[in-house]
Amino acid sequence: MIGIFDSGLGGLTVAKEIMRALPGQKILYFGDTARTPYGNKSPEVVAQYAIENTKFLLRKKAKAIVVGCNTASAVAGLKLRKEFPKVPIFEVITPAVREALRVTRNGKIGVIGTRTTIGSGAYQKWCKMHTRECPLFVPLVEAGHLNHPTTHEIARHYLEPLKRAGIDTLILGCTHYPLLKPLIKSIMGNTVQLVDSAETVAREIANVKFKMQNVKLPKHEFYVSKKTPKFQEIAQNWLGHKIELREIRTKQDKD
Amino acid sequence: MIGIFDSGLGGLTVAKEIMRALPGQKILYFGDTARTPYGNKSPEVVAQYAIENTKFLLRKKAKAIVVGCNTASAVAGLKLRKEFPKVPIFEVITPAVREALRVTRNGKIGVIGTRTTIGSGAYQKWCKMHTRECPLFVPLVEAGHLNHPTTHEIARHYLEPLKRAGIDTLILGCTHYPLLKPLIKSIMGNTVQLVDSAETVAREIANVKFKMQNVKLPKHEFYVSKKTPKFQEIAQNWLGHKIELREIRTKQDKD
Repeated sequence: MIGIFDSGLGGLTVAKEIMRALPGQKILYFGDTARTPYGNKSPEVVAQYAIENTKFLLRKKAKAIVVGCNTASAVAGLKLRKEFPKVPIFEVITPAVREALRVTRNGKIGVIGTRTTIGSGAYQKWCKMHTRECPLFVPLVEAGHLNHPTTHEIARHYLEPLKRAGIDTLILGCTHYPLLKPLIKSIMGNTVQLVDSAETVAREIANVKFKMQNVKLPKHEFYVSKKTPKFQEIAQNWLGHKIELREIRTKQDKD
Repeated sequence: MIGIFDSGLGGLTVAKEIMRALPGQKILYFGDTARTPYGNKSPEVVAQYAIENTKFLLRKKAKAIVVGCNTASAVAGLKLRKEFPKVPIFEVITPAVREALRVTRNGKIGVIGTRTTIGSGAYQKWCKMHTRECPLFVPLVEAGHLNHPTTHEIARHYLEPLKRAGIDTLILGCTHYPLLKPLIKSIMGNTVQLVDSAETVAREIANVKFKMQNVKLPKHEFYVSKKTPKFQEIAQNWLGHKIELREIRTKQDKD
């Protein structure tokens, strides 16, 4: 049983990705809607909330904790690991940074997040990044204004400088932001790759879980009836890892 | 071991979703690149190819077959089930139709696909749909022109009539199209929900697999520190199913 907490709705993007990656896994979700938003509270306060939320999930028999909130990950990730040394604690920042470094082509990575997340320097400590605080996104999402004209206007205001900076990769550094993905995508354009912390942490959890169970991840096999360089290239880009392509002769080749 | 075949690259979108939904599952992929594209070939020819491809995957010890190609699903889905009655055969059309009917709000559903897929009537037999043939999309994807100006122009030409028709849901009726999703999304706008056959068939396979193994799907639990109607509404929309929300008193409420 995996426990996830967030300041409110955002962690549901993580919950959804974990449900997809590990359909048999029961999820225990805690949204701290009474104290939302976390993003403009002090690091000490957020860390205290994170500890209380973790205790609640552990009392409910969670066996691993996912900090489904970038702000809490940024300021309390290490604290939680110290406070609960025997519990696997997953945070949403590191997997997203790794993914961004993997997919960027021009090395220009952007990250958007709450004031506290960006101010914590949790992303920038990994490499130089173009940062932008988006303090209104969480309240807009929590209010359900995913497609409101105001949201569009604010999003343009937040994102334009990153676009001008020529980034080719943008980390959605808050688990609320995947709910605004279509809007963010439409502003940033097709050439900017969005890195979704919800997706990347879910993949990490799935991988760790399989390793913990000593399940060997399968080696998939790829066959084509005619090898083409484009196939290999597009396939690898799409799947996100190298594949070995084998050409096979099927019946029709002899016709 | 799950065998997937497609005329070329498209089925990789299905493969990727199955890898996400069932990380422990080995995949055997066959891309029929020597005979691609299928979309403008006759139903009889495509059905013959589908049978040959299935035989190849079964020889390679696949235990279930996924027709990772809408054209082959449309014209050969039933034929394959008759030809191989003991093998579980999954096709990409039915799960996508079910999902479209679930997410549409105004009842106006669009579907784009190859000539043979649209011509087969495989989608329209379920309910009235706005259809559009997009014969150039598969060759453009196979050539790797995902972001070429020509692709943009052609996409606008294909999609404008569907936009004018006021659809709120668009089925990507070809497994190549998820590779063009950012472009299709940018043209259709945020108010149109895209239904991705690759995603929907992967969910179906994951569900069936769990049922076959008699694994009970877990009942997730959702707690908040303060109940809000918006939370429930947005959460259910996002997760795609009903949730029961429980309010819990945490320490801070007593402060």
